Amino acid sequence: MQLPTFEDVLAAAERIRPHIHRTPVMTSSAIDEMAGASLFFKCENLQKVGAFKIRGATNAVFALDDESAARGVVTHSSGNHAAALALAARKRGIPARVVMPRTAPSVKVKAVEGYGAEITFCEPVSEAREAACAEIAERTGSVVIPPFDHPHVIAGQGTAALELHDEYPDLDCVITPCGGGGLLSGTALAYETLAPATKVMGAEPLAANTATRSLTNGAPVAAGNPTTVCDGLRTSLGQLTYRIVERAVSDVFAIDEGDVICSMRLVWERMKLIIEASCAVALAAVLKNPDRFADRRVGIVLTGGNVDLDRLPWVV
Amino acid sequence: MQLPTFEDVLAAAERIRPHIHRTPVMTSSAIDEMAGASLFFKCENLQKVGAFKIRGATNAVFALDDESAARGVVTHSSGNHAAALALAARKRGIPARVVMPRTAPSVKVKAVEGYGAEITFCEPVSEAREAACAEIAERTGSVVIPPFDHPHVIAGQGTAALELHDEYPDLDCVITPCGGGGLLSGTALAYETLAPATKVMGAEPLAANTATRSLTNGAPVAAGNPTTVCDGLRTSLGQLTYRIVERAVSDVFAIDEGDVICSMRLVWERMKLIIEASCAVALAAVLKNPDRFADRRVGIVLTGGNVDLDRLPWVV
Repeated sequence: MQLPTFEDVLAAAERIRPHIHRTPVMTSSAIDEMAGASLFFKCENLQKVGAFKIRGATNAVFALDDESAARGVVTHSSGNHAAALALAARKRGIPARVVMPRTAPSVKVKAVEGYGAEITFCEPVSEAREAACAEIAERTGSVVIPPFDHPHVIAGQGTAALELHDEYPDLDCVITPCGGGGLLSGTALAYETLAPATKVMGAEPLAANTATRSLTNGAPVAAGNPTTVCDGLRTSLGQLTYRIVERAVSDVFAIDEGDVICSMRLVWERMKLIIEASCAVALAAVLKNPDRFADRRVGIVLTGGNVDLDRLPWVV
Repeated sequence: MQLPTFEDVLAAAERIRPHIHRTPVMTSSAIDEMAGASLFFKCENLQKVGAFKIRGATNAVFALDDESAARGVVTHSSGNHAAALALAARKRGIPARVVMPRTAPSVKVKAVEGYGAEITFCEPVSEAREAACAEIAERTGSVVIPPFDHPHVIAGQGTAALELHDEYPDLDCVITPCGGGGLLSGTALAYETLAPATKVMGAEPLAANTATRSLTNGAPVAAGNPTTVCDGLRTSLGQLTYRIVERAVSDVFAIDEGDVICSMRLVWERMKLIIEASCAVALAAVLKNPDRFADRRVGIVLTGGNVDLDRLPWVV
């Protein structure tokens, strides 16, 4: 597949505007003081479905021609992309089918059901998920919309960066979490053209440092089955996202689990915002590398706020 | 003391503007659907010190003449008012003295210390707190700034309503939590003149239904020592706040503890905002009285976000 371009990000912004929130950018003088830097938090935790994923899913769904769209869309995911695709499909009035592992938390199953998607359960291994997804696509003609390695998904995720740049055009750098790399590569695409002097950086859990290892390796490494509190960042880069990250991202930081949890709690306490652990890697990267960020103006994307409130990582 | 007026609220807004945040008003389509109404949440949990209390404290501190101010301010409180007064005094460059019960949670003591106030500990009974506060005022000449029953404090709290009205001028009603009644009476003062057709309502825990009982009684009843998850709403109305509430508030709802906790959790889950239990009474009042609020446009003040994250009310 062809790599998406800056023009694709602009087109995505136009296409999804009626369907998503323009999220606020927030600041915290207390956290700035701790960081010795000026931080600008793009609050995608306040986005529809509680995560930036609605941007890419909406762009992919609304970019389909009418004939393809009528056959519906399908994906396999147990996370925010599943809910996002379900809502985007409902907005377009087309069927959404989602393959979820039999072990998915009931709260996530309910969210996807709530948006009207048809759920197929499978064994919780990636071969079973992919096979079930392919079978449904074959049988129904539904278009497969993968969670990150897809030009329209990447371009859609890049639209958060357009809004951030519009509000704060003079950032020294922007950091996003990195799992499959959809958000990171979309952000890099946006800044490459808009503000080439602004460095785009990624952050990932040390326990799932697949982007770091992929860049060393010269090609995406397999994710394996890492254990990390960042449940949104257990995947590795894809073929498309790897190429954009390799080209346009200046640094990837790998963060210790304890530092992730401390940064997550800091945002809850000081900013009164609920963010997922997966968001907190980006702030942790700034706090753990003061020499790199001293006196800089740093954009941070808070990617999502879907947390199981009965199982907080700091409550034993 | 004289009752504050609408003009005092306007003057307060002018006076405190450089020192506080103009907080956002947020909405949630999911909660609107549950309520069968349109809700507009004024997010004072995102205010400085994490609560609306900074408005009244700042107004009281900056309204002092230079000579009085130089002697400093003093209060007794273990809650958000203590932190607010400490920060307001630091902004004006004058001493703040706070009497806190020996049993106050260390996180609250640290917050007040962090803003540079001088803390005096006393026995955790109100007579001891008042005596210690009076002794300090006598000895140092500091001006006593009580948490709610004071014209400048009431007028300051009313400024949140000015901002809400500015953004959404066509609300059918506005509900705030009610403890001592500073916010409720300030809000009522603002709407009485700005939009007399907008009903102003209060909500309090059933376990500490002192406003309801005071209104029945025809004068403020004593608070006693109620047990409720709403730690900010354990007080009763004061002499000034009672008179304004009696004159200008249309209804006060008393809410069950379980309903408070459900509404608190609902805001965390659906809006990704951290709010105190004390905030949640207002939303609970709407959700538990659907006949009263159907199809209405309802303003709700989310009063604060200072929560002990190690002790959430739904975690056993």
